[in-house]
Amino acid sequence: MRISILGGGGFLGRKVAARLARDGRIGDRQVTALTLFDIAEPPPPEDAPFPVRRVAGDVAELPEAAIPPDTDIVFHLAAVVSAQAEADYDLGRRVNLRGTDSVIDACRRLSRPPRVVFTSSVASFGGGQNAVLADDARQIPGNSYGTQKAIGELLLADASRRGFLDAVSIRLPTVTVRPGRPNKAASSFVSGIIREPLLGLPAELPVSDDFAVWICSPRRAVDWLLHAATLDTGPMGLDRSVNPPGISATIAHMLQALDEVRPGASKLVARVADPAIADIVGGWPTAFDPVRARTLGFAAHEPLVELVRAFVADDLEATRRERASPG
Amino acid sequence: MRISILGGGGFLGRKVAARLARDGRIGDRQVTALTLFDIAEPPPPEDAPFPVRRVAGDVAELPEAAIPPDTDIVFHLAAVVSAQAEADYDLGRRVNLRGTDSVIDACRRLSRPPRVVFTSSVASFGGGQNAVLADDARQIPGNSYGTQKAIGELLLADASRRGFLDAVSIRLPTVTVRPGRPNKAASSFVSGIIREPLLGLPAELPVSDDFAVWICSPRRAVDWLLHAATLDTGPMGLDRSVNPPGISATIAHMLQALDEVRPGASKLVARVADPAIADIVGGWPTAFDPVRARTLGFAAHEPLVELVRAFVADDLEATRRERASPG
Repeated sequence: MRISILGGGGFLGRKVAARLARDGRIGDRQVTALTLFDIAEPPPPEDAPFPVRRVAGDVAELPEAAIPPDTDIVFHLAAVVSAQAEADYDLGRRVNLRGTDSVIDACRRLSRPPRVVFTSSVASFGGGQNAVLADDARQIPGNSYGTQKAIGELLLADASRRGFLDAVSIRLPTVTVRPGRPNKAASSFVSGIIREPLLGLPAELPVSDDFAVWICSPRRAVDWLLHAATLDTGPMGLDRSVNPPGISATIAHMLQALDEVRPGASKLVARVADPAIADIVGGWPTAFDPVRARTLGFAAHEPLVELVRAFVADDLEATRRERASPG
Repeated sequence: MRISILGGGGFLGRKVAARLARDGRIGDRQVTALTLFDIAEPPPPEDAPFPVRRVAGDVAELPEAAIPPDTDIVFHLAAVVSAQAEADYDLGRRVNLRGTDSVIDACRRLSRPPRVVFTSSVASFGGGQNAVLADDARQIPGNSYGTQKAIGELLLADASRRGFLDAVSIRLPTVTVRPGRPNKAASSFVSGIIREPLLGLPAELPVSDDFAVWICSPRRAVDWLLHAATLDTGPMGLDRSVNPPGISATIAHMLQALDEVRPGASKLVARVADPAIADIVGGWPTAFDPVRARTLGFAAHEPLVELVRAFVADDLEATRRERASPG
């Protein structure tokens, strides 16, 4: 299988590349070539048993090398994130909308339609605290990022119907625990209250302890992306979007899981109410009833405490090293 | 009020312009200027009591004159129709998607956000025969036109949230009776089985008599567009889309209404089954439960027989003249 990862330099793109390098296969097929595309040349995965080509460029004007002829699978993870798309409308439109059109056009030029796995987002929904969304819930986004993700799903479903490509869009929950540094996303604290105490650092909690959020681990997000790359899309019909089986957790549950892994660590979390942040994240749905994803074979989520343990096993040391370096 | 109609040369655009010229006002406000924009310079309405400016151009690169400074209301009716958007993907994307982005950018340049009334479509839904769709039904389009309309709604809702403009999107039913000539739209027969017999001409019916369709008269469509131009959008929140109160009619009911207006006219309708057409139109929803539209003050539909009478009163003679002329 010849695979391209657009956004291959990002947090999830690097994890998908690392998994492919480790496994050497996807589903029951061997990986024969990997192309990594991003704004800057992405780092290659370690010890890949297949050739890796790295390409830098603008996703809105995708260079042909980003999706070479005979590509079988495209992971379309390239995006401007929520805070940035909200701050700069034109940039969000260019990367998140024109970028997806550009991916569609690149796929149209191939000799056969590739599978395209697209990361949509829970941010494409409203609903708020206490909402449990069914698979057929309407997307009424409260931000430009969510709007652009919902549009990407529509574009890719139509392109699939027309036979340009064969898409699966996964509406990722808030991926937790994100490695690295805190960022300016409104959801940054969701990872922060686990990651920072595990590093021995203080963290601020801007919402109440009974605040609930729909999350998934990076491990499970990668599992879902790989499953989406090989599943039979026949039963999906016109609707190529999936709400994957994340887990709904309150802050209290998350801190309890943290203490189970590192007793007393939650003492480093300070309650510092921030109504502006609470207002934004309070609009996101807190739970889904992902019947369709289960039917389509997407793996159930591991228990919350495993999500904390996975961060310790996979990312804690690398994060510590990265944070110790300047910048 | 300074008003622009994009798609001012089309069937509905001309009807909106004619109504504004006749009334001289919109809601309880006087119309002070009208700009008509289309690919070719649109015809001016007769006896307009306000200045009318006509502009020709490409909606995807909207000339500044199409939406002059101080515009209060924009009717965004410019679109490539369903059969054309299906036959030519790039043209549909250019007009229906880039066109809407271009309208948003023109509105961003104005000193205050104008009301934008957008014609979305029942084609943005699937569902099929026997489905009655609630206001919160998801749009899973089965064609590129419907996809592009659903995307237009998302773009305009986000632009409204950001304060670039203040949008209302109306998902028009199949507008019946369309004046003029039969066209290549799969839905052409819905108007044809009434219009052609009233002209004394034969018509073909490609579906069964119990086939149901969600329709509205051109008169009521214009009423809804004008109401959308002046209603208070405050109660709409993030969701700027409305399923208006059309009527669900079977072919048998439509032919009965035709015979009530012109006894025996339905004898000119020949049953000529066309599985290809039946397959396309069979995917469209046949009824909505438009609670929200009623709450927002959109006028209820007149009885089916009035829809036939309205065509006779408003469009039969003009259609006869047009059809008698060459071309």
